[in-house]
Amino acid sequence: MNYNIAVIEGDGIGPEVVNAAIEVLNTVGKKYKFSFVFKKVSAGGNAIDRFGTPLPKESVQTCLESNSVLLGAVGGPKWDILPGHLRPEKALLGIRKELELYANLRPARLLPELKDACPLRKEVADAGFDMIVVRELTGGMYFGESGRRDGKYGPEAYDTECYSALEVERIGVTAFELARSRGKKLISIDKANVLESSRLWREVMHRLAGKYPDVELSDMLVDNAAMQLVKNPKQFDVVVTSNIFGDILTDEASQITGSIGLLPSASLGETKRGMYEPIHGSAPDIAGQDKANPIATVLSAAMMLRLSLGQEDAARDVEDAVSRVLAKGLRTADIAAPGDDILPCSTMTKAILNALK
Amino acid sequence: MNYNIAVIEGDGIGPEVVNAAIEVLNTVGKKYKFSFVFKKVSAGGNAIDRFGTPLPKESVQTCLESNSVLLGAVGGPKWDILPGHLRPEKALLGIRKELELYANLRPARLLPELKDACPLRKEVADAGFDMIVVRELTGGMYFGESGRRDGKYGPEAYDTECYSALEVERIGVTAFELARSRGKKLISIDKANVLESSRLWREVMHRLAGKYPDVELSDMLVDNAAMQLVKNPKQFDVVVTSNIFGDILTDEASQITGSIGLLPSASLGETKRGMYEPIHGSAPDIAGQDKANPIATVLSAAMMLRLSLGQEDAARDVEDAVSRVLAKGLRTADIAAPGDDILPCSTMTKAILNALK
Ligand SMILES: CC(C)[C@H](C(=O)O)[C@@H](O)C(=O)O
Ligand SMILES: CC(C)[C@H](C(=O)O)[C@@H](O)C(=O)O
Repeated sequence: MNYNIAVIEGDGIGPEVVNAAIEVLNTVGKKYKFSFVFKKVSAGGNAIDRFGTPLPKESVQTCLESNSVLLGAVGGPKWDILPGHLRPEKALLGIRKELELYANLRPARLLPELKDACPLRKEVADAGFDMIVVRELTGGMYFGESGRRDGKYGPEAYDTECYSALEVERIGVTAFELARSRGKKLISIDKANVLESSRLWREVMHRLAGKYPDVELSDMLVDNAAMQLVKNPKQFDVVVTSNIFGDILTDEASQITGSIGLLPSASLGETKRGMYEPIHGSAPDIAGQDKANPIATVLSAAMMLRLSLGQEDAARDVEDAVSRVLAKGLRTADIAAPGDDILPCSTMTKAILNALK
Repeated sequence: MNYNIAVIEGDGIGPEVVNAAIEVLNTVGKKYKFSFVFKKVSAGGNAIDRFGTPLPKESVQTCLESNSVLLGAVGGPKWDILPGHLRPEKALLGIRKELELYANLRPARLLPELKDACPLRKEVADAGFDMIVVRELTGGMYFGESGRRDGKYGPEAYDTECYSALEVERIGVTAFELARSRGKKLISIDKANVLESSRLWREVMHRLAGKYPDVELSDMLVDNAAMQLVKNPKQFDVVVTSNIFGDILTDEASQITGSIGLLPSASLGETKRGMYEPIHGSAPDIAGQDKANPIATVLSAAMMLRLSLGQEDAARDVEDAVSRVLAKGLRTADIAAPGDDILPCSTMTKAILNALK
């Protein structure tokens, strides 16, 4: 097997962490007898600098022709002053939409080895948690009609939170299938006591529940969910929610692990092609200094092996290698406790490669 | 002075906690030589049961004729099966809109005496925090155009997040004035990298900042805010945000105090008339059992004394009485640590009344 992977190094620490993941993919490929062709693709801040647009057409084309996309991180303060359509995040939104990656999977798991980094009190950290949030990624107010207009009270601006039953259904199926493969518990998060779009969301989820009698579905209001994540994260297994609520709740969920540098994510559509990227940002302050934590990107590559390339054994092998390295106490700066030795990105990467062989 | 207060006992523990607050108001009134006429008003689940509507017209009228409104809590599972327009929360939304209470003030403070209840790790709890969130309460997707329609992909539902510059300005003024009276730091939370309404929000906030050169304004994206509340709540002093983001973030902010039973809130408009209510819900499971914590409602009454009635000394007196009672170690069930004696609502109320005299 030979896989074509479109690689978006992006900005800041993006290139460093992506290159770590590429080394890991090449190594595990050798072990399991498959190989990769990586095609670098420009998107984000660097694309603005070079081509005057955050997402050149050719970049989208290369992504569409690939088996999957691996992304580092885009953005940085340098481009924050630009107008909306010229900002690095447009690259992310554009790829999501062009590739129809409507399902964003974001695991948030407290690793026992790192529970001292958990910002929650000791009893909660000791109890641990392991959830995965399925965030709708191509609908809602991110892509609904928006603009400026003259209203009853003068100038106003608006965005539209709109969901079709079909959009809710397809993300619902992703979530129910995932719940079926895990703890068989699904929590759907909405604001059905106020929003019409949430009421449709809830109706569709409950209709789907009839087809998944083995999965226990419950609803939770988004404000309550924001509380419960802090109070008792262990109650969550698989969670499904809209684009904007997912944006907020997944960030909260990753923060309560205390180790964002470890968290991968996958964005999927109808086909096997997905986009894989770490949760963390481009961290321009440490870019190019060999200080980044490559683990989130390496684990994103593992998700790609599993979900897009069907290489479950290789995926597990990579995840095990990371676990062993962490269990040995190896730490990059972001996950180090006081007194720990701090490894550079390259050394951490080598340790993972060694653990893999 | 004689004040007319409309009283919405509401559902569940609402009547118990409201009656505690009324006793406190009567007592502090005697001490400071003013008095109250309390008019009970039906709203919420009990109004549905009695009048077939969550917010009878006469209830709104009584509120409009009052100096202020004191509310316990509305809702409960009994009414959760009703269609949208017949649900208890419609009472809340209706009063907010009819009284034009566009500014919701929600303090979230970690009381040193209760820091063991904080769900965050010890260092964060020890550092403490004391913020107040100013949530816009009569605009955005709570009240924008919404409905069902046939779209490109079949049936769909939509809500509109719409803000006029004027709406943003008036909530901005509330927040800047509050920031000026406190630590002179204001954080405005939006999603300006995606939403047009947030970009207008940000523009107006920055325009206003010119009029408040003594206040330091900064912006934060809502997803980041959800993380920062858990990571480092101490960085927040006054926060201002939209209706829906405020709904989510204020609940998260109250949860990180670990003692929701203590948190008051105020909803204000252009006039002095406000609505005051505890953050907590109607807790139907413990209703009528004298187990509720009256403190959040008592502190809401104190906010009323300060913000609507201009009785700052009396307000402070009530707050000090509550602090003394807590400092003495008196606890209701919700804030008790293992081994603490647990007081009923009525005993806690008496303790506050005694501390007041
Ligand atoms: C950069 C931004 C547009 C993006 C989003 O809001 O989706 C980010 O916050 C994310 O969660 O991937
Ligand atoms: C009950 C509900 C409509 C309400 C809201 O969303 O505003 C509540 O969550 C609140 O925060 O006061």
